[in-house]
Formats: sequence, C-alpha cells, structure tokens
Amino acid sequence: MKQLHKQSSVNHRRDEEMLIPQTPPYSPKTLKHPRSLPRSINYLFKEQRLLFIFIGILIGSTFFILQPTLSRLAPSETHPSIPRSFSKDEVISHTQDFSVSTKPLHGKPGRVPVGIGRRRMRIVVTGGAGFVGSHLVDKLIGRGDEVIVIDNFFTGRKENVVHLFGNPRFELIRHDVVEPILLEVDQIYHLACPASPVHYKYNPVKTIKTNVMGTLNMLGLAKRVGARFLLTSTSEVYGDPLQHPQKETYWGNVNPIGERSCYDEGKRTAETLTMDYHRGDGVEVRIARIFNTYGPRMCLDDGRVVSNFVAQAIRKQPMTVYGDGKQTRSFQFVSDLVDGLVALMEGEHIGPFNLGNPGEFTMLELAEVVKDTIDPSATIEYKPNTADDPHMRKPDISKAKELLNWEPKIPLREGLPLMVNDFRNRILNEDEGKGS
Amino acid sequence: MKQLHKQSSVNHRRDEEMLIPQTPPYSPKTLKHPRSLPRSINYLFKEQRLLFIFIGILIGSTFFILQPTLSRLAPSETHPSIPRSFSKDEVISHTQDFSVSTKPLHGKPGRVPVGIGRRRMRIVVTGGAGFVGSHLVDKLIGRGDEVIVIDNFFTGRKENVVHLFGNPRFELIRHDVVEPILLEVDQIYHLACPASPVHYKYNPVKTIKTNVMGTLNMLGLAKRVGARFLLTSTSEVYGDPLQHPQKETYWGNVNPIGERSCYDEGKRTAETLTMDYHRGDGVEVRIARIFNTYGPRMCLDDGRVVSNFVAQAIRKQPMTVYGDGKQTRSFQFVSDLVDGLVALMEGEHIGPFNLGNPGEFTMLELAEVVKDTIDPSATIEYKPNTADDPHMRKPDISKAKELLNWEPKIPLREGLPLMVNDFRNRILNEDEGKGS
Repeated sequence: MKQLHKQSSVNHRRDEEMLIPQTPPYSPKTLKHPRSLPRSINYLFKEQRLLFIFIGILIGSTFFILQPTLSRLAPSETHPSIPRSFSKDEVISHTQDFSVSTKPLHGKPGRVPVGIGRRRMRIVVTGGAGFVGSHLVDKLIGRGDEVIVIDNFFTGRKENVVHLFGNPRFELIRHDVVEPILLEVDQIYHLACPASPVHYKYNPVKTIKTNVMGTLNMLGLAKRVGARFLLTSTSEVYGDPLQHPQKETYWGNVNPIGERSCYDEGKRTAETLTMDYHRGDGVEVRIARIFNTYGPRMCLDDGRVVSNFVAQAIRKQPMTVYGDGKQTRSFQFVSDLVDGLVALMEGEHIGPFNLGNPGEFTMLELAEVVKDTIDPSATIEYKPNTADDPHMRKPDISKAKELLNWEPKIPLREGLPLMVNDFRNRILNEDEGKGS
Repeated sequence: MKQLHKQSSVNHRRDEEMLIPQTPPYSPKTLKHPRSLPRSINYLFKEQRLLFIFIGILIGSTFFILQPTLSRLAPSETHPSIPRSFSKDEVISHTQDFSVSTKPLHGKPGRVPVGIGRRRMRIVVTGGAGFVGSHLVDKLIGRGDEVIVIDNFFTGRKENVVHLFGNPRFELIRHDVVEPILLEVDQIYHLACPASPVHYKYNPVKTIKTNVMGTLNMLGLAKRVGARFLLTSTSEVYGDPLQHPQKETYWGNVNPIGERSCYDEGKRTAETLTMDYHRGDGVEVRIARIFNTYGPRMCLDDGRVVSNFVAQAIRKQPMTVYGDGKQTRSFQFVSDLVDGLVALMEGEHIGPFNLGNPGEFTMLELAEVVKDTIDPSATIEYKPNTADDPHMRKPDISKAKELLNWEPKIPLREGLPLMVNDFRNRILNEDEGKGS
C-alpha cells in the first residue's frame, strides 16, 4: 500500500513537472539527497516510476485473475495452439505465458485494449446462432475470448445462444452478411449459409448471394481491419466425386446447372474469392471443407439424414431412406468439427482442409445405429432419391492429421446418444407447445 | 392511293360505329346493296376492312423498305431462324412474314410502340463494345432492331462501335453491370466480362463480381421487364476436361482455388444463377458456352494465342508458344459465333449449347497457319505454361447442330486473313501514333 501511495504522488508530481520548462538547474546529475532537495526528488522518483507501475499492475492483475467473475476487466490471453474444452466462462491461467505477453498473436495488436500483455481476442462468428456456429461460440467464449455473433436467423435460432446472453463477452447482432458490416475484430469465422438442401434450395438465388456477396463482405472486412478469415466450405465442392475417399487436391465433379448447384457452386466461388483475397491482398485466410456433421442443436426437420432419422425414430415414425439406402456418408460429431476449426484458425496453414470423420456408413447402417440407440422397433420407408445426390462421400483427412494435428475422436455410437437427448427434449417441448 | 383513301374513311366509320350499341337492325345477313343502305355499308366495309388494312400495310412497308434512311420510323421484323449477314443498316424484306406480323414474337408485346403490326425489338447487349459484342451489335442493327450497348470499357473499345454512333437505333451507355440498371427491353445478350486471362486475372475479385453480380443484375432486369436473357458462358466451365471432345452434359474438371478460378467458377456460378432464375422465376433464358473465337477487333495484346501470334508475326517478333505447344484449341471465326448466338436467342431451347468450331489445332499447327498467312519467315519462342492451362479443348456441337440448325462455316485458313487485315491496320496506326 505504501508503494501504491508513492506511485500516486509521483503521478501528481509528473503532471506539475510537465508544465515547467526543462532548464539546466533541473539536471539530476548534480543531486545526491532526494528528500532534502525537492527538485531532485522529482528526478529520483521519475527514474523508479516505471518499476513501481509494473509492480502495481502485477498486484492488480493477480487480484483480477483470482476473481473469475471480474475477468472481463482483466487482461487475458489464451494459448493459441491448445484447443480448449467447452466449459462456459473458463478462466485463463497460463501464467507461463506472461513472459511473451507483450508480443501479440500473429504479430498484430489485439482489438481489446490491455493493461499488460496477455490479450483476449475479439472474434466474429457469422452464422453463430446456427448449429455448428453456436458450438464454436461456446468454445471461444469458454476459452476467454470476446465473441460477436452475426446471424440473420434464417436457419439460426436464438435458443442456441440464449445461455450466453448474460455474458458481457458475448454479443449478438441480427445482420445479413449479404450487406456489409464494419467491426473491429481479430478473427472472422465465416459460417453463415444455410447448409441443408431443404433450406438452401428454398431460395437458390439468395443462397448464391449469401455465399458470394456474404464472403466478399467478410473478406473485405478482414482486409480492412487486418483480421484472419476462416471460410467454412463444404464437402459438396467435390460434388458426386469420382475419387474416393476425397483428398483436398481433388477438383470435384459438380453439376453447374443442377438444383443443388446454388450451394455447391456458391461455396466453390467462395473458396475462389478467399484465395484471391489471399493472393491479391495478403489477407490471412483459412479454408475448411466440412463433411456431414451431427450433434445437439441440429435443426429438427432440415432434411439431413441424421436429424431425419433421429427425429422420426423419437416420433415413432418410419425412417425415410432416399434411393436404395446404399449411398454412404461420413458423420462427424460437432465437437470434433469445432476443435478442427479452431486448430485451423490458430495454425499456420491456409488449407483447404477436409474436416470430417472418415468412418463411413451407408444410410441403412446409419438407420441401424439409430434403431439401436432410440427404438429397436423403428421401421424404414423408401423414397426416390433427389437429383444430383452424391452416391458416396468420405474425407481423406491425412492433411489435417499431419498439419493440424487434428482428427475426430467421437465415434457415431458415442455421439448419437448426446444428440438424441437434445432432440428428445426439443420434440417433447414441441409436443407440449402444441398440446397447450 | 385510292385504296388508302378508302381505308382511312373506313377507320373513321369504325370509330363512329363503336359508339353505337349493337342492335338487331345492324345484322349484315339482311343487307344486299351496300351503297344504298348506309347502315349496311358499314358492315360490308367491315368485312373487307382487314383485307384493306393488309393492303395498306403492304404499300406502307414497301415504301419504307425502299427508303432505308427512314427505317427508324418503319416497323420491321426479321425472320428469327435465319442468321443474317453483317452489312450495316441492312433492311428487312421478308414480305412472306407479313401475314404473322401482328403476332408479337414469343407472344409478348414489343417494347417499341408500333403503328402497324410489324415490330422491331429493343435489345440490350452488355459488353457490346467488346470484340464479340460489337459484331453481334452490327448484326442486330443490320436486321433492323434497336440496340442498347452497355459497356464499362475495361476491355471494350469505342472504336468497335464508332461506325454506329450516327444510327438512331443505336445507343451506348457507359455502365458497369456490377451496378443495377433499369431498361425497357425485349432481349438481353449478357456478354459483359473480360474473357482473356491477362484481363480477368488483373483483378480476380472484380471478375467474380462481374460474373456473379453482373449476371444477377441482368437476370433481375429480365425478370422485371419480362425480357429473354442469354448468358454467354464459356468452354472454361469444362476446366481441364477429362472428356474429349466436350459435350454439354459434361460437368467439367475445374480447380476451385487456382489463379484462373475467378473466371471459371464465376461463369459456372453465372450459369447456376441463370438456371435458378429460369426454374424459380420463369425467366426465359438461354445459355451459350463459347469456345475460342477470333476475328477482327480482337484486343491486340490480350494474351490469347491467335491475337498473340498474329500481332507478333505482323510486328516481326517471334511467336510465343507456352508449354510444348501440343495443347490443342478449336478456333471459331466471330461471325459464326454471332450467328450461333442469335439462333440460340431466337430458338426455343434453353441450352447450354457449345458454340465453337470443332476443327482442332495444336498451338504449333496454329503457328504454321499464321506463318503461311502473314510471314513465312516468322519464328517460334517457347515459354513455360501458366498454371491450370487446359491441355486440350474441343467442342462437341452435335446439340447445336440438331436443335439450332447451326454450325460454323468459316475455316481457320479463311477467317485468319480477315483478321490479319484488321490487325495490320491497327498495328500500323499504333506505330504511326508512336511516331508522331
């Protein structure tokens, strides 16, 4: 406390000193006894001032670090290369990082003003109220960053992020990425686009606008504020692949004029734009190609096979299989995907990277797993396949394994029960809502 | 002249008649002597009226057809399925079409108000000051239509259309299709986009904007005013094709993240948008996939192989061959392409249609033709190939042959001298310009 008092008095004296012109009698060289010589005291204190300030900051920071609820007021920094768990409001305690704390990540200053170096990042997640986006936001908030969610709520739902509304590090903006937006951020996770055929076919032109103009707008933002940009592309860029499993070097087999093309070609063009902003404007970019993903918070009736089967089995309806049910998909649990996205964003490789689970299932095998998990008496109903539906899709993830040190950890038989619990609750609420 | 007088008098009487309610005494069945019975005269003339009107139309039209300079005031119609030659201000004389003159093309009224039935169309050509666009405009003006050219002059040149400036049926608007525009037109030929790698790679993001937002804007216009829309897509949608020659059903082999992708993916997405506007909004669309084209008014230094070779041979420089010179291209003379575009627009088939000359040449064979045509002493210089350059490209045009009754007529050894004359003049002017 004595030190703090001294510091305050020093600050006061400095203010006075700044009004006095610097003349030869003030030279510290000739002074020996600070207390007896008021003018020299200023200089002695001046030379110690920085040290005292640092001690004060250390005391203050330690206090705040020990008080998680005050973490908003404290400077913080995460270890970028370690993907963290999901716990909300988790507090950073990488004290070993203090030594490098004044060096900002990626050599750029953070958007959040900090006392001492340890910095928190400000991150925008477009489509952050959606299925994947909301899980990503949970992870980023959990590791201590500030997150701004942009969503137009076409397929996103406020329910997915409502548990974060009380968190001062969380912000939600109702905005359509087709229109430009200006934000001061360090990183942009660009997820905004309806991703299931039933939604993206609803308004194909809007789907293309979202993919092309939305990506243009977010890349423009990244360029303007010097943020790192991550595009969530899709396995659909491989179309109906002639290579199996698909490597990132495969150029794909996509119908440019089909009913699904709005999504496939839109995402391909989004990739092109991303690389063009990188090559032409030096924007730091990352590209992920996401394969089929499932988990809690998926839309109940989005026509995707996993959510279809699970919802149908819970509702005691027959599970709908399109075509002969022998087309294969790989299913990735959402937490694996989120870990991959963060590893890609924090890593040094542009991509594109396949992010998916190589464990391959036919539709019929998937139906079996759903039956085993939910209801052994569930039945199957066959319907004709939709146009251009790819026959098989399986990621080759050796590039992500090698360069991002990432691979999915949760097998289908472990992940599905986690999703089923969420679906059961939502379908129950739905039914209650109808009944009341 | 007597007939005309009668017709006028008849028209006057009809106007009167329309004010009188139709009552039994007007029945023509009971009338024998038209002159003695004024009421029956109306009816006698009424039954002959259509014949007189047609005779009047014939006289009027013949007059205007003999007076080309008055053609702006005269109604005119072309036979849609007959591609016409290039002569400026060519006058329509398909008198056998007069019988269907009051039925507008495509069942919709024309934009140009007409006195008597034969209608002229109002047509917008985006990129109409460019190489292909300006030849298309010549043809449309030549057959008697009104043409509005939209060009931002990035690669288009006023020189290409300056000979039309005095024509009241021609209009030039400096406008970038990336911005919307509202015009009352019957047909939209959407050609606007830099088409040679040296130009479209100059600003890849702008290239994508032009292809995607430009096409969006013109499709929006087509939807709004009920115009028919023709997209000029490209053989580049086939990428580095694994099928040879390429049919329209081939989905292509395109790198989504390469340096050429801005054009290839931009055009693919433009095709997607075109089909989505057709499927979703009922817009009448046509898609052409244009293969390599050459002819007068090509850019001198656009990096395309034909213009490169010709300009280099005229300038006595060695001809640059990229790679080993064994990659093949098909070369189509521009008048063949223009005939194909018009046949497609006027026909009833959406496409996509390959428009190209299947005559295949390696780069080295092309160099030989250029040598033979211009300068037998011309030499060849080899340079490394650019990234993603397709190894071979040759259209399968059986679909256009069958459904559009179109095929190219001018072989390379006939078309090249026509282009060489134009290039010689321009290079000469250029050199004089430098010298003065």
